[in-house]
Amino acid sequence: MVGETSALGLFTDLYELTMAQGYLLSGKGDEPALFDYFFRSVPFEGGYVVFAGLGDLIERMGRMRFSEEDLAYLKTLGFEDVFLEWLGAFRFGGTVRAMREGEIIFPLEPVARVEGTIMEAQLLEPLLLNALNFQSLVATKAARVGEASQGRAFYEFGLRRAQGSGAMEASRAAAVGGAAGTSNTLAGSRYGIEVGGTQAHSWVQHFGDELESFRAYAGLYPQACVLLVDTYDTLKSGVPNAIKVGLEMKSRGESLVAIRLDSGDLAYLSKRARALLDEAGLKDVAIYATNQLDEHLIKSLLDQGAPIDLFGVGTRLVTGHPDGALDGVYKLSEARGDACLKISDNFTKVSLPGRKSVWRYYQGDGTFYGDGIGLESGGAPDRIHHPYFPDQSSDVSEMRREELLSDVFVDGVLVRPGRSVQESAAYMKGRLALLPDEHRRFANPHTYKVGASEDLLELRSRLYAEAKAKASLA
Amino acid sequence: MVGETSALGLFTDLYELTMAQGYLLSGKGDEPALFDYFFRSVPFEGGYVVFAGLGDLIERMGRMRFSEEDLAYLKTLGFEDVFLEWLGAFRFGGTVRAMREGEIIFPLEPVARVEGTIMEAQLLEPLLLNALNFQSLVATKAARVGEASQGRAFYEFGLRRAQGSGAMEASRAAAVGGAAGTSNTLAGSRYGIEVGGTQAHSWVQHFGDELESFRAYAGLYPQACVLLVDTYDTLKSGVPNAIKVGLEMKSRGESLVAIRLDSGDLAYLSKRARALLDEAGLKDVAIYATNQLDEHLIKSLLDQGAPIDLFGVGTRLVTGHPDGALDGVYKLSEARGDACLKISDNFTKVSLPGRKSVWRYYQGDGTFYGDGIGLESGGAPDRIHHPYFPDQSSDVSEMRREELLSDVFVDGVLVRPGRSVQESAAYMKGRLALLPDEHRRFANPHTYKVGASEDLLELRSRLYAEAKAKASLA
Repeated sequence: MVGETSALGLFTDLYELTMAQGYLLSGKGDEPALFDYFFRSVPFEGGYVVFAGLGDLIERMGRMRFSEEDLAYLKTLGFEDVFLEWLGAFRFGGTVRAMREGEIIFPLEPVARVEGTIMEAQLLEPLLLNALNFQSLVATKAARVGEASQGRAFYEFGLRRAQGSGAMEASRAAAVGGAAGTSNTLAGSRYGIEVGGTQAHSWVQHFGDELESFRAYAGLYPQACVLLVDTYDTLKSGVPNAIKVGLEMKSRGESLVAIRLDSGDLAYLSKRARALLDEAGLKDVAIYATNQLDEHLIKSLLDQGAPIDLFGVGTRLVTGHPDGALDGVYKLSEARGDACLKISDNFTKVSLPGRKSVWRYYQGDGTFYGDGIGLESGGAPDRIHHPYFPDQSSDVSEMRREELLSDVFVDGVLVRPGRSVQESAAYMKGRLALLPDEHRRFANPHTYKVGASEDLLELRSRLYAEAKAKASLA
Repeated sequence: MVGETSALGLFTDLYELTMAQGYLLSGKGDEPALFDYFFRSVPFEGGYVVFAGLGDLIERMGRMRFSEEDLAYLKTLGFEDVFLEWLGAFRFGGTVRAMREGEIIFPLEPVARVEGTIMEAQLLEPLLLNALNFQSLVATKAARVGEASQGRAFYEFGLRRAQGSGAMEASRAAAVGGAAGTSNTLAGSRYGIEVGGTQAHSWVQHFGDELESFRAYAGLYPQACVLLVDTYDTLKSGVPNAIKVGLEMKSRGESLVAIRLDSGDLAYLSKRARALLDEAGLKDVAIYATNQLDEHLIKSLLDQGAPIDLFGVGTRLVTGHPDGALDGVYKLSEARGDACLKISDNFTKVSLPGRKSVWRYYQGDGTFYGDGIGLESGGAPDRIHHPYFPDQSSDVSEMRREELLSDVFVDGVLVRPGRSVQESAAYMKGRLALLPDEHRRFANPHTYKVGASEDLLELRSRLYAEAKAKASLA
């Protein structure tokens, strides 16, 4: 979505360019490197993350170019001609393996893996992180809203308080995570997402008279009439006026689709409005609700029996409230063909080295049991160990398993084009249904098992010991 | 930043289009309307907001057009030809008054005011809210980070976890709020913001040997060498290796600029690193710090005497953590020339009606005393009343005052072009310095006085009573 027709090479952190030039000038530019994309903690105190953004990333990678103007700008920053020439001819020529958009993903496992020369793989970092971190965050929030809504539809209405142009990716990711539609017309047009929306308070205010404004709207949009009933007084004015118009429509053989509540206590008001509509013989008129909703408020409303049929969710969905970010990182796992790792004082931040893959294991009933990370050369492990307490392990030898990473780019050639938003949403829905309930609970969900193979943990221990020994000699 | 070369008309909520068509088909399309942009609560439990995003909004308004492709899409949604024709010829022809970008702003006061036909003023809503809400949020966060940094520079490094393309607006807004620079090269290029950044852990890892990687970097970038010292072990390896390279540079007549700490306890490590650098005779080598920083952590580090010279602030700045959104709204205040308001069960959400302006009052020492909202026709009020407890009032008759809103567009003509980011940042700095300390405190800041004129409150009371009377008759 950034500059959708233009070169995107500069949409990167300056240090990637500084390092890339450094590799080139050090004669290391063509040395092979392998990076993993993974995250460390699940947002929203939840039990899972929905992988999203891959479709946009693929599209962006096709525009990872440097225009003449970009190069001229970089020259003013002091970059050297030999490097600018290289950038001018830049085309990503590496290999990317990734999970499918819509996959249910968990901490520590490589969700995507990038292999190429150190220069090209390094340069890709911000483009990749920017696309995947944010969209996975919002798709996850959307999936949670979907679970809270218990089969009712919800729409994403966040454009006005979204993060600038990030509104576009937010609408896309919300749809991947299960939103039935968006208010954002440009996102509807670009991604083929259903668009929805009715009228604002200003419509009612501008007419001055609420009943007149409702009648005008019903006359103009008899097939899609939803009336906003809280401009003056929901129960004394808005609902009675909507009922008048609903009955007039009925007498013409039309149907009022819904009323919308946008303020006040939505449980109380929806119950009272439902009773008034039903008494008037308008049982088919639905009740839509909006106003600072999120999964927790929706759950609470439905737990209290609020007869709401559709939710509009805005700010808290598109900003991934309250976390605001997924902590996904891009870490070097192989340098010049050798496995390597990033040390940290915090042992849980020491990365998993080497060329890895991820397998998912299934229980007898067809639901997910856990995921195993292993060295690709070793194949799917038959026993997976807790990554920090290796004594804790599970025998998965008898379980059906599937490999989760597959090729997206091979040597720069796109071999698995991005899915449509609708395909990713359908995939997400099917996969989430296979995740046992205990991992989907809002309060204190059970941690999904992600284990590592024995040889991977041994490799990590060996490299850690070597690096520490070397550091203490420095 | 959304589609920077393309038509932006569709970057709106569907209901704005639905309403606009409705006004047109009801014969009301050309009736005059006046909307106010204001927010209700200060984010971050702070005492002020920095107004930002106006420059981008002006640029976007110039691209508020509908392409043939856009119109074809809208036709598939059922919009009528007469309306599509109107959209095809659309040019914003209204009048916008706004405060200056970088202004220090407060709840309830109109920060911008849009006047035009109801169709054009309605259509503008999402474009305006999207630009101003997010950028004001991030500029405010940046100003807070700046206050915590006590004169030290800070950079915005948030691209990788920013909200997709919203990274662009985030970098821009952070600079308006006082960030000295950004890592986001595209934002640097587009907005003329200083860019910065050194190397990542992957640089050190790829070389395999930390000292070798530092030497290579110093050799390549002798004028701008900052070394990341926590890849293996900060105090045992990173700092000693940086000192070796720093001394080598010194012997060549060069200077190591800084070391960067990116993990662990930044107070402890910076003190130990400072001592080691000083002992080695490298007193001029600065210490930079990054890693999940925000204003609170920076304040806490400096309160403990951490000798850090520059901060890199990423995720929490660009996402406006923890709030994630400014609650700015766009409310109709005049319809067809008559003052109007939006009622709410919550009296503090009843809007201020009519054609208003805002004045700022100064204390004798030249600092801000408070702001007054009044009807434009009445001029600057001499007494300002608490908007919800009108008995509480202040005599401001003797105070110097200035009007804060001024024309940006007049009848569609841009009369006050957007300022550069640098101009807005300088303006912000000067204005924030005039805000008394008690409103700038992080913990429980004193509420800045925003009052209304007596005639404005009387108008609100009258319209409220009329609307309620009418609602109870419905």
